Amino acid sequence: MQNVCAVILAAGDGKRMKSQKPKVLCEVLFRPMARWVADALSAAGIRELCAVCGAGAGLVQAALPECETVLQEKRLGTGHAVTQARAFLERRRDDDCLVLCGDAPFISPEAIAASLKLHRSCDAAVTLITASLEDPTGYGRILRDSEGRVTAIVEQADASEDEAAIREVNSGAYWFRTGFLLEALSHLAPANAQGEYYLTDTVGWAVSQGLSVAGWRSPDADVIRGANDRAGLLALNEAARRRVLQKHLQNGVEILVSDGVIIAADAVIGPDTVILPGTVIKPGCVIGSGCVIGPNTMLEQSVLGDGCIVNASQIEFSKLGARVKLGPFSHVRPNSCLLDGAKVGNFVEIKNSTVGEKTAVAHLTYVGDSDVGARVNFGCGTVTVNYDGFHKYRTVIGDDVFIGCNANLIAPVTIGDGCLIAAGSTITEDVPADALAIARARQLNRPDWARQRRARLAPKE
Amino acid sequence: MQNVCAVILAAGDGKRMKSQKPKVLCEVLFRPMARWVADALSAAGIRELCAVCGAGAGLVQAALPECETVLQEKRLGTGHAVTQARAFLERRRDDDCLVLCGDAPFISPEAIAASLKLHRSCDAAVTLITASLEDPTGYGRILRDSEGRVTAIVEQADASEDEAAIREVNSGAYWFRTGFLLEALSHLAPANAQGEYYLTDTVGWAVSQGLSVAGWRSPDADVIRGANDRAGLLALNEAARRRVLQKHLQNGVEILVSDGVIIAADAVIGPDTVILPGTVIKPGCVIGSGCVIGPNTMLEQSVLGDGCIVNASQIEFSKLGARVKLGPFSHVRPNSCLLDGAKVGNFVEIKNSTVGEKTAVAHLTYVGDSDVGARVNFGCGTVTVNYDGFHKYRTVIGDDVFIGCNANLIAPVTIGDGCLIAAGSTITEDVPADALAIARARQLNRPDWARQRRARLAPKE
Amino acid sequence: MQNVCAVILAAGDGKRMKSQKPKVLCEVLFRPMARWVADALSAAGIRELCAVCGAGAGLVQAALPECETVLQEKRLGTGHAVTQARAFLERRRDDDCLVLCGDAPFISPEAIAASLKLHRSCDAAVTLITASLEDPTGYGRILRDSEGRVTAIVEQADASEDEAAIREVNSGAYWFRTGFLLEALSHLAPANAQGEYYLTDTVGWAVSQGLSVAGWRSPDADVIRGANDRAGLLALNEAARRRVLQKHLQNGVEILVSDGVIIAADAVIGPDTVILPGTVIKPGCVIGSGCVIGPNTMLEQSVLGDGCIVNASQIEFSKLGARVKLGPFSHVRPNSCLLDGAKVGNFVEIKNSTVGEKTAVAHLTYVGDSDVGARVNFGCGTVTVNYDGFHKYRTVIGDDVFIGCNANLIAPVTIGDGCLIAAGSTITEDVPADALAIARARQLNRPDWARQRRARLAPKE
Repeated sequence: MQNVCAVILAAGDGKRMKSQKPKVLCEVLFRPMARWVADALSAAGIRELCAVCGAGAGLVQAALPECETVLQEKRLGTGHAVTQARAFLERRRDDDCLVLCGDAPFISPEAIAASLKLHRSCDAAVTLITASLEDPTGYGRILRDSEGRVTAIVEQADASEDEAAIREVNSGAYWFRTGFLLEALSHLAPANAQGEYYLTDTVGWAVSQGLSVAGWRSPDADVIRGANDRAGLLALNEAARRRVLQKHLQNGVEILVSDGVIIAADAVIGPDTVILPGTVIKPGCVIGSGCVIGPNTMLEQSVLGDGCIVNASQIEFSKLGARVKLGPFSHVRPNSCLLDGAKVGNFVEIKNSTVGEKTAVAHLTYVGDSDVGARVNFGCGTVTVNYDGFHKYRTVIGDDVFIGCNANLIAPVTIGDGCLIAAGSTITEDVPADALAIARARQLNRPDWARQRRARLAPKE
Repeated sequence: MQNVCAVILAAGDGKRMKSQKPKVLCEVLFRPMARWVADALSAAGIRELCAVCGAGAGLVQAALPECETVLQEKRLGTGHAVTQARAFLERRRDDDCLVLCGDAPFISPEAIAASLKLHRSCDAAVTLITASLEDPTGYGRILRDSEGRVTAIVEQADASEDEAAIREVNSGAYWFRTGFLLEALSHLAPANAQGEYYLTDTVGWAVSQGLSVAGWRSPDADVIRGANDRAGLLALNEAARRRVLQKHLQNGVEILVSDGVIIAADAVIGPDTVILPGTVIKPGCVIGSGCVIGPNTMLEQSVLGDGCIVNASQIEFSKLGARVKLGPFSHVRPNSCLLDGAKVGNFVEIKNSTVGEKTAVAHLTYVGDSDVGARVNFGCGTVTVNYDGFHKYRTVIGDDVFIGCNANLIAPVTIGDGCLIAAGSTITEDVPADALAIARARQLNRPDWARQRRARLAPKE
Repeated sequence: MQNVCAVILAAGDGKRMKSQKPKVLCEVLFRPMARWVADALSAAGIRELCAVCGAGAGLVQAALPECETVLQEKRLGTGHAVTQARAFLERRRDDDCLVLCGDAPFISPEAIAASLKLHRSCDAAVTLITASLEDPTGYGRILRDSEGRVTAIVEQADASEDEAAIREVNSGAYWFRTGFLLEALSHLAPANAQGEYYLTDTVGWAVSQGLSVAGWRSPDADVIRGANDRAGLLALNEAARRRVLQKHLQNGVEILVSDGVIIAADAVIGPDTVILPGTVIKPGCVIGSGCVIGPNTMLEQSVLGDGCIVNASQIEFSKLGARVKLGPFSHVRPNSCLLDGAKVGNFVEIKNSTVGEKTAVAHLTYVGDSDVGARVNFGCGTVTVNYDGFHKYRTVIGDDVFIGCNANLIAPVTIGDGCLIAAGSTITEDVPADALAIARARQLNRPDWARQRRARLAPKE
């Protein structure tokens, strides 16, 4: 796209959300609404962006690093909001400028491109993005003349009965010729007792100047959806969720029952992968084909190869090779890499570690800050002791090592290839390849001792 | 409220529920239906209560300790049921008495108060609580005269076509002048082949005596909802659940997706707290603001401060301060208190213990019957050994203690401030402040031992 | 049933499912669709079965071991598919043969029996199984004469406006007199440009020969439901799930909220058992009465006695006696048996073991390949060390044994009745009854050591 820019209206506070956060940072599928909008603009090829911020401007700025930001100190209406971006607009006087709401997350690159195309082909001063709703109550209705040109936006309160019956409504997103927008803004007058300036009044100004106003009606009414409160936000999440699930079903992902399944919009999932209920896939995940994920599993920023099984577990910022089995009830923390065919069983934590091919960490084990070779067997209850209270150290374990149960490997320590660590040993020194390392006391049986103790301690009748 | 009493009809058995429990003890959102009713009566200020019990009377009595109970030995209809409360009623002859069903849990204090107000302002002998249903099939229809006075209740079977079209129905809850009720009961006659006595016949009696019968129509039709079978009970739970979720959304709680989210009616949750799917909040919970609860978390009778994160964990009868992090996969058992900033990681059980500020219990640890200071670090696999097979003992741990991995602290034992417990040690005696305690065998490496063993044990080709 | 056979059309590939599997192996409630069909045939008493397979014939054959299979090498229509079974049909020339789709899983034994009865009573050459749909779009419409005899099937494309309005549609399942079917197949001609042979054309052939064609309309339209893609498969799962839940509700099972609850069609569950959300019950489970199962629990091929509590845990191919408590967060792996009153707490894995009556395995323990007596108490962190890297060995533990925390029992090993194993001990040799076994180093306290170390290691200001 050439000669285009956009102004994102992002000044709403979270009052009706009862949130400390600015409204546009309320999340849909784990992504702030304003990011949905900025990402759609980016995908449509619009690079020059200005966000009009209000309360919590710093937070919005942080969430939208690619945007210039301006501050709307008082909340005096959408027209007033855009006026704050005057300096941004002045520099782009010959562009077309898309003004849109930072809390209507479903605007799509396709809608942006198609509406711009209409805008330019009509040589319009303003082009409204509109949609037809089953129930248009509360929205501004679009009035068109016999040739389809927009003649006015009529607000609910001002609508005649005939006008109220119109189902095409204003989305709050508009293409402007920037030069026209600047002129129109300077002609805005406070529209009501509160002294607010309405951006919609630019339409009347254009018509009064004999300029053309176009309306691009989106075939997908969701592009105009926003949320004013938490119930509305829940509805947006629900709608987004259904869309994402539908896409994966079409791609051959098997979803037995969608209850509790939430998949971020950017997830990539291969065919023949089964998603069981209660699976939450946060942003940044790529999952191979033929996997079984869930039930009750949470993934974030992680890549899983083909044929993985992840059962009732959580994985963050990590990578699993092919045919890795995880769970139930395990936790892979950031910066971990489980190579092909690794098996991590129940009640295991892996953190900042590499686990080699076909290595087994079956149960009740902590592998942290470790580099583990292939075909290693961790006994139950093994701990890589990575922390001394001040610093963290690495444990290095070669290939084909067998670690006995309830062993401690106190890092920094290196266990050579083919070693055997005796169960119950606390290992403080390196072990050369193929050695046995043992650190434990000899067993002593004291006959009848337990019976005598029982006689002493048991409640007397 | 003055001069009021209530009779709860609670004699239904669980036959259609296929339950061993009395029907009124079937639960909606973890609370027996009869308790919903008794709590609404209490909230409306009605203190004089009588429950008419049948099968499982003892269980009902235990669930409704504030009620007198009388036994209906035979099931001879609602009129017969109320007659069992005659002695209770005789003592309150000048009161107004609310007779209502113990299995219609959604009666509200507001409905009780508003209907009493109407009852008294009409000087009615009987005032029915009614509601209008989309589909009134099966319910008794309310007939009113031109001035709105109730003239009769017509049962489905007896209704003419016009009468069947009436959508206002009888709820089964009635205000009576108690004196009138006693008289009317004595005039009830068996209404059918089964010899049952119907409370609805008191309406006809009142009309025949020229007494006024009022009808208070509830704006919320749910007040009359009950359940006859498990599918109906599921529907009641579903309805109650939606109401509770709606309330929390209005309060600024974020619910991403409501699947598997069940919140008891008495929960208090601060704004900006996020509830993830699969979260079950049982009765008695108070949760601060800015928390993240879930997914797949269960809380019961617990209080959580602001900014807590509880991930895939369970907490019972305990208290978390502010900014406590718990999980994934941890379990806080009764009588525990995790102070501000405590971090309890994966696969940890805390029971009947205090965990001090900023103390970390990161993984695979059991802290039971312990008093733990601030800034303590528990190594992975640490166990507070609280049980000797006969008694439980406490472990006392000071501030700034560092406990090595897989250590056992055998209670009763006291670990002084600033101690270090070496990994793999079993501690049986007190450790003075700032000391190291160690109990382990020295490591021995036997070169080539593991290779030789492998050669001996490995399957020969 | 006498003189009956069936041909299952199972040659569809998974292309629209985007699956590597043959379409008929796509699963509904954990069971391949073709198995639903074969099980319904078996329940209806039809023993002579032939499956026409295409891609992945070996997989289909393995899933339907009771069926003869024939291969349809080219996909030339349903008529061509049945022709591949000619040899099977020739041997049963005097039978009635049911031809049906392997991907319409809800065909019922009742529908099979009732349609056969009509088929025979009408002396029909062909009897269609039909159903009436709200929206018949896309299906072949059933034309009947004034006496109700089927005169034709009209495909959507060929239907007049009147015909398109007919809501009775062809299910794709038909009873044939086998002799007639063989003759009709030999008269089929390629029906379209692709050269496909349609089985529906046999109806026209029968009519043209003056033979009777009957239509049995199923009262339950679900019998004709199939799925072409993953979204359709999700809908089938959803429908099947609702049916199964409804059945259990009728049986007195309490389902608080059905979110995430998936119960295989063959599950048996006693009354007064509560199923909490997120509970997945895979095939082969029998659950007693008065249990509480869930939340977030998965069971497979397991039997649970009355009064069990299974909280956020997984059980596979195992057996629990009465009043067993499990969880939260535990895992019972195949071949385990937990006897009456056993308590298995959080973060415990049981595998291929027997756990005796009232034995307690409270936390962070692995019991594998073990035979454990009654009233045993496992300390936290105990491990039965069953694997030496090459072989697995059994641990035998008598009654009334008390095992200290973080102990290792290195199998093969036998612990006699009444023994006490000291915490932190690694046990390598048998322990006679009533003895104490201990294997640990003596505790040493080094005063001030920890303080000095702290001074050395702590970051200097």
